[in-house]
Amino acid sequence: MQMNDCSEDPIGVFDSGLGGLTVVKELNHHLPNERIVYFGDTARVPYGTKSGETIIRYSREIVRVLLKHKVKMVVVACNTASSLALDVLKKEFDLPILGVIEPGARKAAAVTRNNKIGIIATSSTVKSGKYARKIVQLNKNIVVFSQPCPLFVPLVEEGWFDHAITYQVAGHYLRDIKKKKIDTLILGCTHYPLLKGVLHNVMGTQVQLVDSAQEVALQVKEVLTKRRLLRTRLGPCQHLYIVSDEPQQFKRLAMRFLGGGVKHVRRHIYV
Amino acid sequence: MQMNDCSEDPIGVFDSGLGGLTVVKELNHHLPNERIVYFGDTARVPYGTKSGETIIRYSREIVRVLLKHKVKMVVVACNTASSLALDVLKKEFDLPILGVIEPGARKAAAVTRNNKIGIIATSSTVKSGKYARKIVQLNKNIVVFSQPCPLFVPLVEEGWFDHAITYQVAGHYLRDIKKKKIDTLILGCTHYPLLKGVLHNVMGTQVQLVDSAQEVALQVKEVLTKRRLLRTRLGPCQHLYIVSDEPQQFKRLAMRFLGGGVKHVRRHIYV
Repeated sequence: MQMNDCSEDPIGVFDSGLGGLTVVKELNHHLPNERIVYFGDTARVPYGTKSGETIIRYSREIVRVLLKHKVKMVVVACNTASSLALDVLKKEFDLPILGVIEPGARKAAAVTRNNKIGIIATSSTVKSGKYARKIVQLNKNIVVFSQPCPLFVPLVEEGWFDHAITYQVAGHYLRDIKKKKIDTLILGCTHYPLLKGVLHNVMGTQVQLVDSAQEVALQVKEVLTKRRLLRTRLGPCQHLYIVSDEPQQFKRLAMRFLGGGVKHVRRHIYV
Repeated sequence: MQMNDCSEDPIGVFDSGLGGLTVVKELNHHLPNERIVYFGDTARVPYGTKSGETIIRYSREIVRVLLKHKVKMVVVACNTASSLALDVLKKEFDLPILGVIEPGARKAAAVTRNNKIGIIATSSTVKSGKYARKIVQLNKNIVVFSQPCPLFVPLVEEGWFDHAITYQVAGHYLRDIKKKKIDTLILGCTHYPLLKGVLHNVMGTQVQLVDSAQEVALQVKEVLTKRRLLRTRLGPCQHLYIVSDEPQQFKRLAMRFLGGGVKHVRRHIYV
């Protein structure tokens, strides 16, 4: 299908907002030679409380924007979009598309020793049941416990990474899952790695926290290697960031998050 | 300008989501004979963290949808849209358009005795400074203290109206404003009336809570009366609810909120 050499083309990554930058960070680390076009849907964030139909429509629109930038593959860095839209996107578009659910599920299934895995995510992701199904497909002896945590995203966006109230909210949400004696907890939303400190404290350090960003980066590398799409030409390449709301605030937060290097932030207006 | 008799036409009301139903409730009470077309932008909620430019674009699109339903006036029930888009909408559209800021400011200025008013709202509403300017225009002796409370909307949407954590979050946000010895607090977001119990408890019952919904309904009545646009024909008239995301969840929540009577909920998809 790939008639031309697309290896010089960028990797497309999208998320409902900022959260997907955790994936960009890992891609930078594992594939420092690749160029990324990132789309953050900041004018319509969050996705986690919206319907599947709406998430599919938004995701489809974003992939079309990324295709205009000639991406060679697409990473759906948002857990909600991965849960609800990935299958449709894969059917509709003719390029490799990866989500974050499978890599996260695979890692959790590999690290659990007592076969009890917890999943925390947005309401839509939990409702989709995708993580649980994928894990049980991998190993039917694993028991999965899911818990939606709708206040975690606003708490992260408020910057309360280590606030007393965040500890209490976490304590409240994780109470039941803690009783189940899980040894592995999937952070099923790209915002949650920012609460790792709180989550470790509440769950205890014996519980492994699985954040799929790293796994996703490794899987992207695998796909590009297999399809001979790894960028070979060395030399400078700047990522492009596209957002649907005002670019300045995104740029400020992205700079802080990625530690600099965010030069090109452009706004996309849906028509 | 009004050449035809538009009195039989409905009143258009819009909000980023469900919150504007507090205004619908008051309109039902004060103008039981009127028909309402309500638009809830549930596919793009919330507005309170987004840029002015985006809020203006969304508001303009919604007014166009309402005009297709031949509304005789528009009520911007969302505080963020009232703060950031009202002036533009008034310039662009040729029908009476009311926001919620002025009625709320007017009421607060009327009830304060010590001329110290607090305002709690979303980040965008506070940043716009609209409430404070309007109050000082009404009475330059009044001092205004504003506090953004970004976690209140998610707490309401989580249904934690009376949760211990909600008390703590409120205690945190209101600490400074409480020290200012205000006697009047404007609830500058349509979600906040659902936290009245918590807010009374945290602020003390001597502080008056001003919720603009009732004032807005009275102002709508005044405008319609002046322009001879009050509906005169008696008889059944069903409100129409339009939402941009999936209608069923909205219907369920709206039924609970308004105590029934929500029959027609339709979905609008932006093209």
